[in-house]
Amino acid sequence: MQVNKDAAVVLLSGGQDSTTALGWAKQQFKTVSAISFDYGQRHRVELACATRIAARAEVPHRILDLSLLSTLSHNAMIQDSVIEINEENGLPTTFVPGRNLLFVTLAAAAVYQSKTPNIVIGVSQVDYSGYPDCRGNTIKSLQETLRLGMDFPFVIHTPLIYFDKKKTVELAVKLDVLDWLADSHTCYEGKRPPCGECPACQLRAKGFQAAGIPDPLLR
Amino acid sequence: MQVNKDAAVVLLSGGQDSTTALGWAKQQFKTVSAISFDYGQRHRVELACATRIAARAEVPHRILDLSLLSTLSHNAMIQDSVIEINEENGLPTTFVPGRNLLFVTLAAAAVYQSKTPNIVIGVSQVDYSGYPDCRGNTIKSLQETLRLGMDFPFVIHTPLIYFDKKKTVELAVKLDVLDWLADSHTCYEGKRPPCGECPACQLRAKGFQAAGIPDPLLR
Repeated sequence: MQVNKDAAVVLLSGGQDSTTALGWAKQQFKTVSAISFDYGQRHRVELACATRIAARAEVPHRILDLSLLSTLSHNAMIQDSVIEINEENGLPTTFVPGRNLLFVTLAAAAVYQSKTPNIVIGVSQVDYSGYPDCRGNTIKSLQETLRLGMDFPFVIHTPLIYFDKKKTVELAVKLDVLDWLADSHTCYEGKRPPCGECPACQLRAKGFQAAGIPDPLLR
Repeated sequence: MQVNKDAAVVLLSGGQDSTTALGWAKQQFKTVSAISFDYGQRHRVELACATRIAARAEVPHRILDLSLLSTLSHNAMIQDSVIEINEENGLPTTFVPGRNLLFVTLAAAAVYQSKTPNIVIGVSQVDYSGYPDCRGNTIKSLQETLRLGMDFPFVIHTPLIYFDKKKTVELAVKLDVLDWLADSHTCYEGKRPPCGECPACQLRAKGFQAAGIPDPLLR
């Protein structure tokens, strides 16, 4: 079976983590492409950010239409509602069940024809806000499912899995992709420049502060 | 965590196996719904069949738009090409990589809000034509992935997993849903009445013949 071991696809949301993961992939693999999903997210600015970041990284970029997702369930990421914690399961109402499972499975199906085994996703189980599909054991199980279900030796790479935001910033510096983060989107309010007040902005600011690096987005 | 143990969703393609699986689900669970995917399949008649079968079964039926799939890869199921065997991997060119992984994951995301744990799919690893996502070990791994990734006790039921077409016909008789099969679609040529010549028609005919039951589709 032919396998292009030097090829990888990166799931690029347009956020800080996936942008850093793209930098990591560019260093690890010879042929890199990026894939984003238009799933009716509240902040379509993310997709424009992803496009700019892919251009900076000089990688081909596809945006796949997954608007279906917005009809499946109701949650804050795709509706104009306030971010809050669901009292029953303790998850933020931004939770789209199984979102990363779908994204990775679709990415795998998309690169199957080109014999690309490497899938890179910037999930972290440190700053994961309780999302079960960001945990290492979920990703490991998903990798096995894809290998069995497509009979192809996929490897899901999670370079940030044990990193908090401080370490993610330090990795971006090390990879020399800090400038790319000027185009990344974090704010839950969808604002550019960011609101600085929402939980996502605060988490990002804390990471840059701890790393002792100014956020290029705020320059 | 609330779990509606009596509720199930059935993946209904409109074919013989998923129709029989729907009959099985109706016997096992109190609340049953059906879900189909419009993924640019060559024979959209399948979706009309699924709608008629769901009506016979008196279950709610949703058709989800997954036209995205037709843009992901090139294959005979979604293009007007001849069914043939890919010499490299020995799979029919009808193979859409990971199709069942996507269908089941989307079904899980769709029923998550209603706390429905049971997902029923009519795959068989006897008559599976080499599709790796029809095998029991793939389904078992996928179940674990969904449980971990959505933190919900999903159970994927595969009532036909060890059944050839003869046993599937016998199950339909036992469940008293043989009539539903008059509305099921099998022919690779998309013909109704079926062409009788394609591999799918022949496999179906062989099953009914072996069971000693006339196919209600041919009445």
